[in-house]
Amino acid sequence: MSREAFVNGNYTDYNKSYIHIEDRGYQFADGVYEVFAILDSKIVDFDGHIKRLFRSLKELRITSPIQKESYKFHIKEIIKRNVIKDGVVYLQVTRGVASRDFKFPKNSKSSIVIIGKSIPFNYYNDNFSKGINVKTTKDLRWKRVDIKSLNLLPPVLAKQYAVDNDCAEAWLLDEKGYITEGSSSNAWIVKNKTVITRPVSYSILNGITRSTLINSLKKVGYKLVERRFNLKDIKDADEAFITSATQFVMPVTRVNNIKIGNGFVGKFAMLFKEIYFKSISLS
Amino acid sequence: MSREAFVNGNYTDYNKSYIHIEDRGYQFADGVYEVFAILDSKIVDFDGHIKRLFRSLKELRITSPIQKESYKFHIKEIIKRNVIKDGVVYLQVTRGVASRDFKFPKNSKSSIVIIGKSIPFNYYNDNFSKGINVKTTKDLRWKRVDIKSLNLLPPVLAKQYAVDNDCAEAWLLDEKGYITEGSSSNAWIVKNKTVITRPVSYSILNGITRSTLINSLKKVGYKLVERRFNLKDIKDADEAFITSATQFVMPVTRVNNIKIGNGFVGKFAMLFKEIYFKSISLS
Repeated sequence: MSREAFVNGNYTDYNKSYIHIEDRGYQFADGVYEVFAILDSKIVDFDGHIKRLFRSLKELRITSPIQKESYKFHIKEIIKRNVIKDGVVYLQVTRGVASRDFKFPKNSKSSIVIIGKSIPFNYYNDNFSKGINVKTTKDLRWKRVDIKSLNLLPPVLAKQYAVDNDCAEAWLLDEKGYITEGSSSNAWIVKNKTVITRPVSYSILNGITRSTLINSLKKVGYKLVERRFNLKDIKDADEAFITSATQFVMPVTRVNNIKIGNGFVGKFAMLFKEIYFKSISLS
Repeated sequence: MSREAFVNGNYTDYNKSYIHIEDRGYQFADGVYEVFAILDSKIVDFDGHIKRLFRSLKELRITSPIQKESYKFHIKEIIKRNVIKDGVVYLQVTRGVASRDFKFPKNSKSSIVIIGKSIPFNYYNDNFSKGINVKTTKDLRWKRVDIKSLNLLPPVLAKQYAVDNDCAEAWLLDEKGYITEGSSSNAWIVKNKTVITRPVSYSILNGITRSTLINSLKKVGYKLVERRFNLKDIKDADEAFITSATQFVMPVTRVNNIKIGNGFVGKFAMLFKEIYFKSISLS
C-alpha cells in the first residue's frame, strides 16, 4: 500500500506529492498549520485545533481553501487511506502560488496539504518512564508566535541545539530570563502542589493540549496558576513537564542537567497524563 | 518560449516546477535565499551575494547542494534560457525533504531552486522621479535577521501594512523606536551632508547594495556615519532613501505622510544612484 496525501483537492501518492516552487509557503513561510494526534483512528480534540487554525488564517488574512466543514472529512479520509490507527495528521494552508513579491498577491488561491503518518504511540515508553532532559536557550522567535505559522526556523534551531546537548526539548528564555515555552510544546512546573504555566499572550502558542489539561485540572480541583517562571523557579520545583498534541503530558526530569525534584518522574505528571487522556474528545 | 527554472539539478518548465510537500523549506522555512539583479544579461555583484549565501548556509548548518563554482553557471543558464536582459534571478536553498520533525534530519539532501524573471528596469521611472512613501511599523521579526532565511512572514506582513497605507515600503522600528531597516531594503537618511545608516548587527541584513554604496561613498569622500536613527531624526533629515538589490537607490519623500526635506527627490539620492551604478561589478 502506498501512502497518500491530500494536495489542493486531490489525493496523491505521497512520494509524488508536490507543490509549485513559487508557493508562498516555500518562499515566505506565508502560511499556517496544525498537527492532530490520531488515537484509535480518531482525531483528538478536532474542534480546538480547527478553531485555532481559523484564528491563525484570520490573523494572516488567508482565505481557507476549503469549507470549514470539509476539514474533518479530508482528515478522516487521510486516516482511512493510510490505515492510521495511532499517529498524526499534519495539515498546512498557505497563501498559494504567486510570482514572488512580499506584498499579498491579488488573486492567489490558498494551498492546502494534509499528510498522515502512523506512529505506534506507546504511552508508557522510555521517554515517559524516565522523563526527558531539557536545555534552555534564548527565545529568538518573532513577536507573534500565538499565530501557528510556518515561520519555524527559530524553533528548529532551538530543538537542534537541545539535541546537540543530549536533550529532547529546548525551553526558550525571554529577555528577562522567563521561560516562554518549549520549541514545540508548552512548559509547566509543579511546586507545593501548585501547577504553574505561562499565561497565553503573543509570546506563546495557545496549546490545545495545554487548554484541555488546564480545564480538566480545574474541574478536578487542582491549584493552578498561570504565571511566568524562570530558572530559579525550575530549580526549586518539585516537578516539571511539557504538553503537546503528540507528546500529550511528558515528564521533564532534568533542565540544563540539573535534577528536578528527586530526578525521577513525578506523581503529578503521571496523574495529569491519566487526567488528560480522560478529558480528550475523539471524533 | 516557455520559462524554465532550475530545480534540484534539472531545468524544468516553470509552470511544472515542483518541490515535494515535505521539503523543509515548505514546512519550517528551513532555508536561505538570494536575489540577484540582472542588467544587460549580467549578474550584479555576484561575489557579494554568493559570499553572503554561504555565510547564511553555514549559520544554519545547511550543506550547499552544488559546488560553489557551479552557482554562476546555473544563474547564467537561467538568464540565457529565459532570455533575460534586465530582471532578477531568485535562488533558494533548503535543508531538503524529510519526514516532518523539528530537529535536523540525518540524511536529507539540500534542495535548490533558481527562478529568473524579466523586469524592464526603468531607472528613472515614476517611483524614482517622485520618490516613494514609507510607513513605519513595529519590527516583529526574529533576532537573527542577519541570516537571509526564508523566515519571511513578518516582513510580508509589514510590507502589506505599508501597501494598505498607500506606501511602497515599511520601515521597521525596534523596541527603542529606532529604525532597523525596511521590510526588504536598508534604510538611510542624509542630514547636513552626512549620510546615516544603521550599523550591521543581528538586527539587520547586511545588504549587498548597502555595502557597495558605502564603499563607493567613502571612496568619493562623503561623510558617512553608521548609527541608529529614529523618527525624530527622520523628521529633521534633509533626505531619505532605501537601497536593495532590485531597487538600487530609491528616494523616500514621505515617512508616515510627513514630508522629508522639501518633499521632493533630493540631490543626494540622485547622485548616489549614479555613484552606485558606477560601482557595481557585472559578471
